[in-house]
Order: sequence, then structure tokens, then C-alpha cells
Amino acid sequence: MFSASTYQGRRSRLASDLGQGLILIAGNIDAAMNYRGNPYPFRQDSTFLYFGGPDKPGLAMTIDPATGRSTLYGDDLTLEDIVWVGAQPTLTEQARQAGFVEVRPMSKLSGDVQSAGDRLHYLPPYRGDSILRLATWTGRTVEKIQSGFSEALIHAVIGQRSIKSREEIEEMTWAVDLTGRMHVAVMREAEEGLHESDLASLVTGMCEAEEVVPAYGIILSKDGQTLHNHHHGNTLESGQLVLGDFGAESRMHYAGDITRTFPVDRHFTNKQREVYEVVLDAEMLAIEACKPGVAYRDIHLHAARIIANGLKDIGLMKGDCHEAVAAGAHALFFPHGLGHMIGLDVHDMEDLGENFVGYDNTVQRSDQFGLAYLRLARKLQPGFVLTVEPGIYFIPELIDQWKAEKKHADFINYSALEKYRTFGGIRIEDNVLITEKGYQILGDPIPKAVAEVEALRYIV
Amino acid sequence: MFSASTYQGRRSRLASDLGQGLILIAGNIDAAMNYRGNPYPFRQDSTFLYFGGPDKPGLAMTIDPATGRSTLYGDDLTLEDIVWVGAQPTLTEQARQAGFVEVRPMSKLSGDVQSAGDRLHYLPPYRGDSILRLATWTGRTVEKIQSGFSEALIHAVIGQRSIKSREEIEEMTWAVDLTGRMHVAVMREAEEGLHESDLASLVTGMCEAEEVVPAYGIILSKDGQTLHNHHHGNTLESGQLVLGDFGAESRMHYAGDITRTFPVDRHFTNKQREVYEVVLDAEMLAIEACKPGVAYRDIHLHAARIIANGLKDIGLMKGDCHEAVAAGAHALFFPHGLGHMIGLDVHDMEDLGENFVGYDNTVQRSDQFGLAYLRLARKLQPGFVLTVEPGIYFIPELIDQWKAEKKHADFINYSALEKYRTFGGIRIEDNVLITEKGYQILGDPIPKAVAEVEALRYIV
Repeated sequence: MFSASTYQGRRSRLASDLGQGLILIAGNIDAAMNYRGNPYPFRQDSTFLYFGGPDKPGLAMTIDPATGRSTLYGDDLTLEDIVWVGAQPTLTEQARQAGFVEVRPMSKLSGDVQSAGDRLHYLPPYRGDSILRLATWTGRTVEKIQSGFSEALIHAVIGQRSIKSREEIEEMTWAVDLTGRMHVAVMREAEEGLHESDLASLVTGMCEAEEVVPAYGIILSKDGQTLHNHHHGNTLESGQLVLGDFGAESRMHYAGDITRTFPVDRHFTNKQREVYEVVLDAEMLAIEACKPGVAYRDIHLHAARIIANGLKDIGLMKGDCHEAVAAGAHALFFPHGLGHMIGLDVHDMEDLGENFVGYDNTVQRSDQFGLAYLRLARKLQPGFVLTVEPGIYFIPELIDQWKAEKKHADFINYSALEKYRTFGGIRIEDNVLITEKGYQILGDPIPKAVAEVEALRYIV
Repeated sequence: MFSASTYQGRRSRLASDLGQGLILIAGNIDAAMNYRGNPYPFRQDSTFLYFGGPDKPGLAMTIDPATGRSTLYGDDLTLEDIVWVGAQPTLTEQARQAGFVEVRPMSKLSGDVQSAGDRLHYLPPYRGDSILRLATWTGRTVEKIQSGFSEALIHAVIGQRSIKSREEIEEMTWAVDLTGRMHVAVMREAEEGLHESDLASLVTGMCEAEEVVPAYGIILSKDGQTLHNHHHGNTLESGQLVLGDFGAESRMHYAGDITRTFPVDRHFTNKQREVYEVVLDAEMLAIEACKPGVAYRDIHLHAARIIANGLKDIGLMKGDCHEAVAAGAHALFFPHGLGHMIGLDVHDMEDLGENFVGYDNTVQRSDQFGLAYLRLARKLQPGFVLTVEPGIYFIPELIDQWKAEKKHADFINYSALEKYRTFGGIRIEDNVLITEKGYQILGDPIPKAVAEVEALRYIV
């Protein structure tokens, strides 16, 4: 945990940003897997953590802007609980560590919340259980709970959480460094005949050994062209690429999110290297373009043009790159956004609404295929941490449909594309802090140049 | 998956058991971790799987007893979905594999369900998301959904799922065999100076390598006296015991649930061995007592008396063992139940209600501390699979309270107990099938005799 004064400062600022009403931030409860008594590993709500909520299920906090008072709600363990889960610090002790002066039993929350009436501010609930708890506490219907969240609170929370403090950066650097070691281990161990699951097993094992969990479902696959592919059932064969997109959460739940792509063999083939170099160029030049005041949407388009240009050199695209990107032709190969904010969530604050986090009144979300998926578009500010993750993919189902429709036929060389149907996909991703003057890549460097990656392969 | 006719047979029997109404069995959706887009690993509902539901999120089935018709509800992927998650078998193809004749889009479910009106049978929902979905489909309030489940359906489902078929036993044996290899690996690798998390990392890694997950939160701790302890932060020290209670799920989601306890050192100390032998006796004699027609509550009490008797020999209990167990004095050391049904859930069918699964009109649940936790009490039948898992624990908080209250002072030697305050806990657990004539321990034998366990320790 950070210091009590850090959390007090965050809550004070939130109170003064809202000015009136009663702010309610609910912690999570255990999420049932196949029955209530068999929960998934507990994950606390990120905003609750950010404002000093203990990392335990079944809690809530209120902040009263009028009085400045913060209250933590929860119940201490009974002796029977202790038999099952062991002794724990008391709630009062946990509250003290986060600078809460007042602790009240859960049974008081409903009355306290209902006395605030319509002046209640809460965030959009993203779990069914949270919707039901909010409905019970407030006496409102679930429909009213789902629509009645506070945009003012959302904006105030995003305002604070978007700008990472020095101590948050340290925590994120820890996560990225562990993530980097996981990637290096995978690149060293992968070889023909192994299963994808053998590599995934390295990743989960390294997390567990540090008492942390992966920040999101591990992507580790020869089928890198499937963007969110959590299947690990294939055997690695010579000639294939492996795409690994995974990251660790730190103990305070800050995420790392790194992607590397490497060949099953010792070396990339020429064909693989050509495409790889285009993605790497796009990634490195996009990172270099990161600085305060630049809209991330422009950096996304910059990366898209580098990709279109590179694919033109290879013979897979044609025509003017600016025009191709403006038309959205590159999205056949690069159908997703360049990146997203990262912090306590891997897609930071996505529960609060992607458009609130990544867009503002100067940048509206596009509805063009590809660009529509861009999660972060607005101008960068010092203290933002974001991912930069361009990719090139050959998705047979998408190619077939576009080809049949002759879509963007002026920009895409469909006949040359046939030889790439089984190529797979390449993505390269780092986590980048926006500084006063530019950027800083978080963590120790993780091999990504062709020579660096090949140097890790088949070392005896 | 099993054959289409297996699932058709199960659904037909369910239809004929209910006789009337419309049976609705909902599959699970993805469970949000810290936002909707970052879900926990998907876990399908066990009853949905049992009756042939595909292992995918967002589905439901109905069974109409009047017509015998089973319908699978769901939607196929769009091309945009395929870009993100890859091509999948069509819903029609998945339905065919489980013998469903009819497939309908999700949008039709609500109308079909509402036309059944009050004749609708559904199971108690155990996730907030399921409550909300049922409320939406039926047009009922969440309060009415939470109370309006069908006891007739619960009994019919328990009637089928309690008796495991030959092919289910094979699947469970696979899970127990993998679980056994995980325990042997942990016993081999554990040594002074390692962290508990290093051992937990072996377990998760071995599951991941087989593309399966642990069936429940891993317990792997020097603090075995805390019954459900999922903390893995301690360093192993000479003189300590390690309690490992973990199991793998098979690919079809049948659980293994095995516990072993072993010393950090090469050998048990005399004091450790004395207590260990009592637990092992209780476990093996309880298993030997398993056969059709015997109430599991009687086997629980049998094991409790073996424990009381053994602790008397050690000098920690005194007086008549039958009287001590009748009074509940043994529960200071053995505060939980002897075991539970196991199958598609580690506590099988616990979502349907523990009392429906483990009790009936011949055996009522006790409210005595310890015995009250017994999940399975009723008479055993051929085809039941259950855990046998006695233990002896030294729980300082519980000892202090009982001692202060002079609770069961006629049966407990509190002064002798002082030397055991930091002993920890021992539990030994196997998974047992009830056969026509007696029992069969599932899977290959997993070392549990003192000599067998010691033979695994510090092998170079």
C-alpha cells in the first residue's frame, strides 16, 4: 500500500471535485465460479483500491464532500470465520493504514446511503453482483441502478487515475519487469514439438511464484492472427511464428501488458522478417511520436501509414498510403487500435466507459472498421501510461470476405496475399509513460529487434 | 464430450421426472474480473454441461416434458467476433454433438420462456449475472427470481448427477491422476527456504500444461490449521509441516480433490508422526467403512471417534471417546465434516443447496459446532463419489476461546495442548467411489503412509 496521506489526498481531491452529494465506492465481493462457495481468485475493484479501500471482499466506502469525511464499511471476522480463513488485521487497522477515520458495520450502509437520496454518486457497476448490492443498499430497481450512475464522479475519477504518480510508476515498472522476464523465459524455452500450453504454464508458474496473477487472459499462440485467442492447444511446428501477449499484475494490482512475436525456429524466415520489421518500425516510430499535446489518434494513424507503406514495399498493398489509411484499407491487416491507457486495469478504467477514458469533446470515436476499436484517441498528457501495440495479421475469414466484396481493391493486392494465408500474425507491444518532454518505455528493455530475439532462441 | 445419446438420455429422464412445465437450464456468461472486457477464465455451469450444453458463454437450453423437445438457445459468431476470437464450430454443429434437434437464437428465449408462465422450472442462480438474466427472460423481479426456483427440478437433477456413470468415473480418474502427480511433484520439490508460492507455482504450471485449471483455490501452506488458507507467502522452515489441498479439473470439468501433509524436513518428527498416524488411521478406516446403505454421517462420527481415541493416546484428550464425540469435544481438533460429494463441482451440486444434496428426510443437519459443517450425511449409494478427508488441527484462536470457557474440560487436556500451539494442521484426503459391494479409491495410489511420504522427500 501507499501511505495513508496519499489515499487521504486522493479522497480529498475527489470530494472537492464533486463538491456536493455523497460519493459511494463499492468494493467487490467474491465472484462465484461454479457455486458461491467456490469463487474465482478475488479481484478488488480498481477504483476502490485507488482510493484506499482494503484488498478484501465485501467492503464499501463513502466520501462526503460537505464534511470531507471518508467512511469505510465492513465487518470483522467472527471466530468461525477465523477457523476457515485464519486471523486477519482488524478492519480498524486496515482503515487506519489508508487514513480512514471512521469505520462502520455493513449493516449501516443502506441507511447512510438512503439518507443521501438523489444526491448519491456511484460508478457504473460491471458485475451482476454489484448491481444487486447497489439496488439493495439504495432501495432502487436494478434498471434504475444500471442507468443512474454519476458522470460527474466518472470524470473526477478518470481525472485522477489518468495521471500516474511516481510511486504508481514504480509499481507498474515492477509489473513490466516481471512481465519481461516471463517473455524472455518463453522465448528461450519455445521449440518445435512443445505445446503452446507448455509455454503458458511457464507464465502462470512465474506469476504464482511471485504471488501475483496474470493481468488478463494469456495469449500465447501460433495463431497470432486471432486477436484475443486464449486457446493453448497447438503443437509448435517449424516455420511457425508464436505470438505472446501476456502480463503480470503487481501485488498492488497494477498491470503489465507486453507482446512479443518470435519464430519457432532459431531464425525468422525472410518472409517473416520482412513483415516483422514493418511492425517493429511502426511500434518504435509510434513510441517516438509520443509526447504531451499529441492526439493518440494521430499516432495511431501514423502507425497505420507506416504499416501500409511497409506492406506496399512487400507487395501486399498499393497506391497512396495516406489515401489507403484514410479509406481504412490497412485495417485488413491492422484491424485494432494502436493502444490504450494502462494502470490498475490493463485497459485502464474501461469499467467507467471507454469513451470517457479515451475520448473527449475534441476527438469523437470513428465508426470505420479498425479505427472504431481505438480505445485511446485524445491528446496525451504527462503522467499517462499507455500501450503501443501495432500488428499485422493475415485473417483468412476477413481476407475472403473483403476479396469477395472487392473491398479497397485499389489499395490491396489480393492475388499476392494468397501466399500469406497461413502466415499468422505479428504484434509488438510496450508500455509507455508520457513525460514532460516526450516518453519513457517502462521497465528494463525486453528484446524485440530481430537479432535480439534470435539471440534468445535455442541457447543451450 | 460424451455421446449425443448420453445427453439425450439424461434430458429425457429429466423430462419424465418433471412430467410437466418447461425446464430452463441457463449456461453461464463470462464473469467480469475488473471490467466486463477482462473476464475470469470461463467456467460453464455444471448442470448445463451435464445435460449437453456446449462449453461456451451466453447459451441456455429448454426441455419440454410434454413434447420431449430439447432446444439450445444461442447466437453464432459474426465476422467481427471471428477477428477477435477465431473461427469456431457453428452452434448447430455443437448442438448436434449433444443431440439437440432444435437451435434457436437467444432473442427467442424470452418469448418462449414467458409463454410457459408459472409452469417454468429453473435452478437457483448463484451468480448475480444469472439472476439478472433470468429476471430479463421471465419478466419477473430479481426478488421473485431468487425465491422462485423449482425444488422438483433440483431433486430431479440431484437424482441423476449423484450417480456417476462409468464414463464419468473415467473422467474423474483422469483428474485424480493428474492431481496425484501434482502432489508428488510438490512433495518432491519442497524444501527448507522455498516459498509456499514456489510450490503453488508447480501446481498451476502442471494444470496449465494440460490445458486445465485447478478445480478450486489451491491450499498449500505451512499453516494447515487454517482450513481454507489461500495465502502462499511463507518461507518453509525446518520443523514445519506443509498441507497441500488442491486438485485439477479434467477437460470436461470433473474435479479431483486430494490433500496430503508432509514435513519440510526429510522425516516427520516423532510428535508429527504421532498425530499423522491418527489422521491416517481415521482416513483409511473411514474409507473402509464406505459401502451402500451406510449413512455418511455415521462414518463421519466413526472417524471422529478414531481421532478422539488417538488424541487420548497422545494425551490431548481424555474420558470416554463415544461421549466426547457425542458432546462435540473432538471438534476443537477436527472442526469440519468428513467429506462431500464430488463430480462436476468439487463440492458437487452445492449451488443446488447443500441440504438437498447431502441430507434427506432420514438425516437432518446438526447445529453442533463441527458436525454442522458436514456436507454429506445421508445413506451412500452405488455410484456416489465422495471425499474422505479427516484432519487434526491446532487452531490457537479456537483453543484460547474454548480454554477460557473451560469448554469440554472433561474431555480435553488443555495443559498438554500448550506444546502444540504452533504445530499447524494435518489433513489426508482421497476421492472414493461407492461400488455395489463397498468402495474404490479413485486413481493411482498417491503416497500417504509415513514411509511412502518420507521416501519422496529430498531425493537427489
